[in-house]
Amino acid sequence: MPSGEDRLIAKYFKPLATAPGALGLTDDAAFFAPPEGYDLVLTTDAIVCGVHFLPDDPPETVARKALRVNLSDIAAKGAHPAGCLLTLAMPEGVAHGWLHPFASALQSDCDLFGCPLYGGDTVRTEGPLWVSITAFGTVPRGTMVKRAGAKPGDIVVVTGTIGDGALGLRLLQDPDHIERWSLSDEEAAHLAGRYRVPQPRTALADAVRMLASAAMDVSDGLAGDLAKLCEVSGVSARIDAPRLPLSPAAAKAMAAQPDLIEAIATGGDDYEILAAVTAGNVQAFHDRARAASIAVTEIGEIVEGREPPQIIDANGGRLSFARGSFSHF
Amino acid sequence: MPSGEDRLIAKYFKPLATAPGALGLTDDAAFFAPPEGYDLVLTTDAIVCGVHFLPDDPPETVARKALRVNLSDIAAKGAHPAGCLLTLAMPEGVAHGWLHPFASALQSDCDLFGCPLYGGDTVRTEGPLWVSITAFGTVPRGTMVKRAGAKPGDIVVVTGTIGDGALGLRLLQDPDHIERWSLSDEEAAHLAGRYRVPQPRTALADAVRMLASAAMDVSDGLAGDLAKLCEVSGVSARIDAPRLPLSPAAAKAMAAQPDLIEAIATGGDDYEILAAVTAGNVQAFHDRARAASIAVTEIGEIVEGREPPQIIDANGGRLSFARGSFSHF
Repeated sequence: MPSGEDRLIAKYFKPLATAPGALGLTDDAAFFAPPEGYDLVLTTDAIVCGVHFLPDDPPETVARKALRVNLSDIAAKGAHPAGCLLTLAMPEGVAHGWLHPFASALQSDCDLFGCPLYGGDTVRTEGPLWVSITAFGTVPRGTMVKRAGAKPGDIVVVTGTIGDGALGLRLLQDPDHIERWSLSDEEAAHLAGRYRVPQPRTALADAVRMLASAAMDVSDGLAGDLAKLCEVSGVSARIDAPRLPLSPAAAKAMAAQPDLIEAIATGGDDYEILAAVTAGNVQAFHDRARAASIAVTEIGEIVEGREPPQIIDANGGRLSFARGSFSHF
Repeated sequence: MPSGEDRLIAKYFKPLATAPGALGLTDDAAFFAPPEGYDLVLTTDAIVCGVHFLPDDPPETVARKALRVNLSDIAAKGAHPAGCLLTLAMPEGVAHGWLHPFASALQSDCDLFGCPLYGGDTVRTEGPLWVSITAFGTVPRGTMVKRAGAKPGDIVVVTGTIGDGALGLRLLQDPDHIERWSLSDEEAAHLAGRYRVPQPRTALADAVRMLASAAMDVSDGLAGDLAKLCEVSGVSARIDAPRLPLSPAAAKAMAAQPDLIEAIATGGDDYEILAAVTAGNVQAFHDRARAASIAVTEIGEIVEGREPPQIIDANGGRLSFARGSFSHF
């Protein structure tokens, strides 16, 4: 006589447990045979309704975001995804109409990123819905790329575009921004999509591993995350604000409202890779990025010193922000 | 400028991240070098305030329960703990007075079980406090003990005592039970303690791995969990209710209220190991249990058939329970 929870797991999540060691989620635990000569890279991130996603975000994007924020960490460490474990807490009323698209979208992403489900737990909560995922990946032994390791003279590069997620959140919270920023429907959808569905840069993981001195993913805002990387590396950095890569939508918004530079540089939800790359490796990094069809932009350089990184505007002035980094605390 | 979350993690959880690969929780991810020739055993379980623990449970026992429910799974699979990742969701008002004892107790248990912290995430929630832990352990390649594998003729054994956790919960919810069951203060404290702080049978993991045909931990009630083990093994079982190992406190409660047999057999929160052991291995299993100072009791045997396991009372009658297994759904 299977319990309600067992039935729910069998119905919705067993199809995601495609690895033999997952045993179809019918056991207390799963097993994973690590490839010899490789380390595991481990990370865990939870997303909570009303904090990390919006109450009316579709179940599909909630699923994708929950997995991808973890895969973004794995990629930034130079690793490839190998598997994940999921805990889902559901308030009363979460039923088939939500669970089915949630599980289907998660399955698509597990397949897409080669990251099958190895374990699941479902719990009831009287509070908001939340999803906690632990993901693990693999790197050749001893090669995980750390935040520490950036050296003066290294070039600071970032993938993709910065600020879309933060602007997407503002726009979803107040659609008047669409008109205020003179955005087309496509541009508005681009920003909202970037908030809801991060794009882990898994295709660049090998380049990061082989070419970067230090790297991390930008999840809490470029300025604050760069400050963290510099702090553990014992260095500082000088970034040129005009070189920050903006999507056409973000550029249009900033043209309409120039003080959005702060939201762009500190807002978070970017899920791009920020890396320090030795000057001699930069061209190779660009070549690999081009081959992977991922934009990479040089935005500044690592410099000596222990002071926080400087972000310099077009007039040579130093930008200062009220808050350096996004935090829920 | 570290964020509030970074400060919180550094203050409370960095001391638990004793493994070199955890990088003091200052990176996006951790690395773990799996020993060659070993598989990882992976499990995840969350506990939610008001569902899996009580609102006035002390922070120390919440921490211990959160870790130990996972370590119980690892032990039942024949594996030894290697590390864990923690996500903690805190409502407003959870501050130093709660976090300090929570983190200290978790640190004690991480040390005690050789299970250092490899990653942490803290989030705010408007709902109840919850703790989600993913734990991983190691077993020699291909030797994880599964629920499947029990064979007719195997002896069904269980560690420790059964029913204490379920009775402890009842007693904590309604202290009138102490008088109704004629319990001493020590007996009442024993039952409450068994609900709040599970005892993972890590010291028996090698015996399970080498001697058991199939095993699982008893978390959702002996009757229902045995049914799950039998189902995936394609067998049935016959259990003698009078042989279920009861603590003196549980025996006293059942003497006062005989229908507690249902709560004892189906209530859950036991976190003991239930195993099917080939008859020829039973003596060796007992020997190892004695060496580890863990009680092991033979409670019945695996039989042919696909019907649910039978639990037979002292008169030879078959017990039937309204619910076979504990579930929050």
